[in-house]
Amino acid sequence: MIIIMEPGASDSQIQHVVEFAHNLELKTIVNKGVVQTVIAAIGETNKYSTEQFEAIDGVRTVQRIQVPFKLASRDSQHTDTVVTVKGNIKIGGNNPPVMIAGPCSVENQENLIAIAKVAKECGAKIIRGGAFKPRTGPRMFEGLGKLGLEYLDVARKETGLAVITELMDARDLDMVAEFTDIIQIGARNMQNFTLLNELGRVKNPILLKRGLSATIDEWLLAAERIMDKGNTQVIMCERGIRTFDSKYTRNVADIAAIPLIRRLSHLPVIFDPSHATGKWNLVSPLALASLVAGAQGLIVEVHPDPEKALSDGPQTLNFENFRKLCSDIEKLMNFISPTPCK
Amino acid sequence: MIIIMEPGASDSQIQHVVEFAHNLELKTIVNKGVVQTVIAAIGETNKYSTEQFEAIDGVRTVQRIQVPFKLASRDSQHTDTVVTVKGNIKIGGNNPPVMIAGPCSVENQENLIAIAKVAKECGAKIIRGGAFKPRTGPRMFEGLGKLGLEYLDVARKETGLAVITELMDARDLDMVAEFTDIIQIGARNMQNFTLLNELGRVKNPILLKRGLSATIDEWLLAAERIMDKGNTQVIMCERGIRTFDSKYTRNVADIAAIPLIRRLSHLPVIFDPSHATGKWNLVSPLALASLVAGAQGLIVEVHPDPEKALSDGPQTLNFENFRKLCSDIEKLMNFISPTPCK
Amino acid sequence: MIIIMEPGASDSQIQHVVEFAHNLELKTIVNKGVVQTVIAAIGETNKYSTEQFEAIDGVRTVQRIQVPFKLASRDSQHTDTVVTVKGNIKIGGNNPPVMIAGPCSVENQENLIAIAKVAKECGAKIIRGGAFKPRTGPRMFEGLGKLGLEYLDVARKETGLAVITELMDARDLDMVAEFTDIIQIGARNMQNFTLLNELGRVKNPILLKRGLSATIDEWLLAAERIMDKGNTQVIMCERGIRTFDSKYTRNVADIAAIPLIRRLSHLPVIFDPSHATGKWNLVSPLALASLVAGAQGLIVEVHPDPEKALSDGPQTLNFENFRKLCSDIEKLMNFISPTPCK
Amino acid sequence: MIIIMEPGASDSQIQHVVEFAHNLELKTIVNKGVVQTVIAAIGETNKYSTEQFEAIDGVRTVQRIQVPFKLASRDSQHTDTVVTVKGNIKIGGNNPPVMIAGPCSVENQENLIAIAKVAKECGAKIIRGGAFKPRTGPRMFEGLGKLGLEYLDVARKETGLAVITELMDARDLDMVAEFTDIIQIGARNMQNFTLLNELGRVKNPILLKRGLSATIDEWLLAAERIMDKGNTQVIMCERGIRTFDSKYTRNVADIAAIPLIRRLSHLPVIFDPSHATGKWNLVSPLALASLVAGAQGLIVEVHPDPEKALSDGPQTLNFENFRKLCSDIEKLMNFISPTPCK
Repeated sequence: MIIIMEPGASDSQIQHVVEFAHNLELKTIVNKGVVQTVIAAIGETNKYSTEQFEAIDGVRTVQRIQVPFKLASRDSQHTDTVVTVKGNIKIGGNNPPVMIAGPCSVENQENLIAIAKVAKECGAKIIRGGAFKPRTGPRMFEGLGKLGLEYLDVARKETGLAVITELMDARDLDMVAEFTDIIQIGARNMQNFTLLNELGRVKNPILLKRGLSATIDEWLLAAERIMDKGNTQVIMCERGIRTFDSKYTRNVADIAAIPLIRRLSHLPVIFDPSHATGKWNLVSPLALASLVAGAQGLIVEVHPDPEKALSDGPQTLNFENFRKLCSDIEKLMNFISPTPCK
Repeated sequence: MIIIMEPGASDSQIQHVVEFAHNLELKTIVNKGVVQTVIAAIGETNKYSTEQFEAIDGVRTVQRIQVPFKLASRDSQHTDTVVTVKGNIKIGGNNPPVMIAGPCSVENQENLIAIAKVAKECGAKIIRGGAFKPRTGPRMFEGLGKLGLEYLDVARKETGLAVITELMDARDLDMVAEFTDIIQIGARNMQNFTLLNELGRVKNPILLKRGLSATIDEWLLAAERIMDKGNTQVIMCERGIRTFDSKYTRNVADIAAIPLIRRLSHLPVIFDPSHATGKWNLVSPLALASLVAGAQGLIVEVHPDPEKALSDGPQTLNFENFRKLCSDIEKLMNFISPTPCK
Repeated sequence: MIIIMEPGASDSQIQHVVEFAHNLELKTIVNKGVVQTVIAAIGETNKYSTEQFEAIDGVRTVQRIQVPFKLASRDSQHTDTVVTVKGNIKIGGNNPPVMIAGPCSVENQENLIAIAKVAKECGAKIIRGGAFKPRTGPRMFEGLGKLGLEYLDVARKETGLAVITELMDARDLDMVAEFTDIIQIGARNMQNFTLLNELGRVKNPILLKRGLSATIDEWLLAAERIMDKGNTQVIMCERGIRTFDSKYTRNVADIAAIPLIRRLSHLPVIFDPSHATGKWNLVSPLALASLVAGAQGLIVEVHPDPEKALSDGPQTLNFENFRKLCSDIEKLMNFISPTPCK
Repeated sequence: MIIIMEPGASDSQIQHVVEFAHNLELKTIVNKGVVQTVIAAIGETNKYSTEQFEAIDGVRTVQRIQVPFKLASRDSQHTDTVVTVKGNIKIGGNNPPVMIAGPCSVENQENLIAIAKVAKECGAKIIRGGAFKPRTGPRMFEGLGKLGLEYLDVARKETGLAVITELMDARDLDMVAEFTDIIQIGARNMQNFTLLNELGRVKNPILLKRGLSATIDEWLLAAERIMDKGNTQVIMCERGIRTFDSKYTRNVADIAAIPLIRRLSHLPVIFDPSHATGKWNLVSPLALASLVAGAQGLIVEVHPDPEKALSDGPQTLNFENFRKLCSDIEKLMNFISPTPCK
């Protein structure tokens, strides 16, 4: 940590900061500049927040040197984490990008199986579908609950695909963990620390969506929390961020976050073009772009008749467009096989 | 709802939208303009999301006419909601602004009682203190849990102040509801729908902090959800939003949100200058400003020795500065008694 | 325009709005809903701002139906604009993406020619280089001025490449127009209306960078202004936008803006991965991603020794990395030849 | 400057950075930590950008210790700058807040004089009015130009008020400087460096509006540039910033920026509640709030009939509301006389 004193800080204020650091078992180096004194505090600074120093009299500001995450950091593990799902699906490293597809919400058994079959036929390995749906307003469709999980299970058995679904409530963890292969944590729960803390209890890999306005550090710290509790199988998922303009797109797809996460962390990172854009006709160009930038998978909303979908219709691909996307990806694979983002 | 068709939309596409609306029991008025057709859908549109229409072929965009919230809306209740706490503390309406003060985290019994006594002496009616603390990174102090609640209870009994504390986990609801007068929902949980849904079960008023990047509509929809579940005693709390600049302040205090919420809604609205600024020396100017703009209360972090506080030290007032703020507020009350924001 | 009245608006207020619209030669359709009255104003609404209606008593809010731009809109011209530079360089439509490369600032003649030769050898058609440099703070290197233009001219003659350079001051327009093929308008000048208004006077194509926090509409309106003044050869350039996180990247690359602009407008759109990311090691993944998403060109900062560059060093490719990027693009062209963004 | 090396940086990379700094005549202190090496570069670092160091191999990131502005900094001048206008109007320091009022655009002579008289009667010292109007789209009213300046001059002579108007084009500087007392630089031109550079040529004080998404540092650097060119009479003007929510307010008023600028800088700071909110019924609460937070003046849009105003009608006060605001301010002055923000 670098502790920058006010220009007029007194010697006793400086001495006080030094002692404060020593009490936390940090070593210090004091640099008296022409204008200001700067104190470097060295040691296990990850255990302390910068604000503990900022509250001290005479301190102007405090900056971290090291990234605030550790277990999730590429500095601590140089090789890529590869998450294995259902025994043989590999996500991360140099494995080909994994396609996850399915409806926003699980609506009924027939629909889900129809979608799963098309997904499988196009090369998807995992089916998605919400049984518990977060909705901004009350009095809207919030998912089928346990019944939705059962429908997913049937689809899994019929097609052999793996299943991913969102967990919203820690009390549902055991049930969701049983019915699903990967547990999704949604954007609005990325900093639901109560929920994250529980995930160490299960062995299912976790798909961690980036929060709507989460910084890169906050997102990796959420992964860090899950890892710290004992579950190291975390897949990062970029899904667009909130900016000053949402007239034409629901969010802004932060494509650069994909190669950036791959540099900062060893965890796999995938992309959700459906939520990132909010418009079905932007899904394919952005999906392809993310793969070129290094995404190790995609999660895409697909429905036989998007205008009848109970949620997220405008950003959902119909079967025809989904087939086209998968065929474009196949062509693109010739290009991206020499992984571009190392 | 106003459904705006693409310039080249066909008659059958227009007809299809009209039928779609009729199936939802909405009436329609179709306006064929020179460039585009516009369809007004009238009725209980709050039950439907705009995306259901946006997914239809030939639709360019859909806009709501009515605000998306209803129970929380000033249109549905013209008089101010006044929340009563512990029998005689009134928040909202033309009542004088209520001061809530206390440490970020409950640290120990002695400290808490000392703070509570100073708070009471300065005219505060309610003591705050976190027993469960959300922290961005793992491996930091996360509160004393139930012990913290017990300390709060003792402070309440000794001073007669009411108590507010944050709830983070639905499983703690009954315990927290028993030990506290007001339940706080933090910024990171403003869209934790699982948690919000439970709050109808208890009678305690709810202090609902605005999410870090929550729009005004999303914030009021979160209040709407709590009200819809049966708890109408919701207090809105502005605490700063995230923008492109966080070098000097932790957040940007959205002071205009205070008179705006008072116009859009009948619910009381208070201000948290500690989190909104993140710097103790900006707390007082912003606290005073918020009252002039119509805030019906303040929630302020106070600690006898901020640099020793286990969290939020840089934004915490010491006793001297807190006493000065309260005395400034008293002087200001002569000005704001003729409530300025009508 | 859709004019939404307050729920309690009186008949005379409604009547007043209708007359106001008629005075502007707009037709009106009045829909009285259960809660609110909505008035559609039809005609040449592009000539009026929504605020003229919003200022009227009883009006809650006003929304545009049509996009606010017209000349730049795909609705007004269905076929792609193709900009021709120096007789034979084509930008836009189904032409292969054009590479523009060069140093941030023109520093000296030798350097510039060395860079131009590498650029040409790699397939670039246009050399970039700033003679007038905008700098956030005073007392920094601000470009060589006219001498820089002369160096560019020599490089043009030696290599046959076309030249692009930034114009910052309307008083320099004739000089810049003479020395350069394309005139660049930088992000900070995207809403310098004084400067934009002059561009109709020259025949050079204009590269219009997106402002740091410009919405899609504002960006297209800036293009509209240039076109309205008589210069229709506008090339849009996405260069990243400002968001809440700038710790690891200078801006957030809004890749979705590329296919979006191609749908909303007929103008060509290119991408600047150097400014969009601010980090040389993110330039290539993002450059490739933008092409897959439909970018019709790239503008990239290249320097023989980025650490000696007088500006923008951290985001500048050295020759080795630039050669690698161009070779990757060549491979990728097999994939993107069937233009992906229709 | 603090230069933070990559964890794996080699000794020769570290040595290279040290030599690079020495070549710029900076002294260095090298701290080898457990994980990373940190180099402090000391001296006239304001002359160099951090990016020059960030471009060097083995450097992870570079942070400034000192604020990047110098002439504008409170560290370089401890006492408040007081700007004197027309001989006897004082802005800044402990002087009572100055009221600037007038129409968005100068429309005609009669109107302007009527407004000026009401402004004067209410205690305003300065009249505002745009002769050159920036407009987002083309084909809208852009001001009366020189005629507008002449109308302002007449109003000045009739009422004795001082005049402020916006300068958009460096070529108009001499004319505007002659007709006006204070020159306003608008938000969209805050980083129009060409325009700022000219302002050292004139003696008129400059009102510098904050850019729509300008950081505090960028805003003060724009002031620094004007001061560096020779004009030290700069008045800062907060006018709201762009965020993720603009449904109900045009911008978000950053009230905390007011006391913050007063701490970081010695320059006076005033507030524009009209642009900051975009809604006339939020103008008064925010104006009063800004004064309590330390604003040293206000600039407010006033028009006898806002719905007929050619621009900015929705945010403009009519005479009745303006009189009410001025009377509220007078009452408030009893409170704020002991300036709250020291």
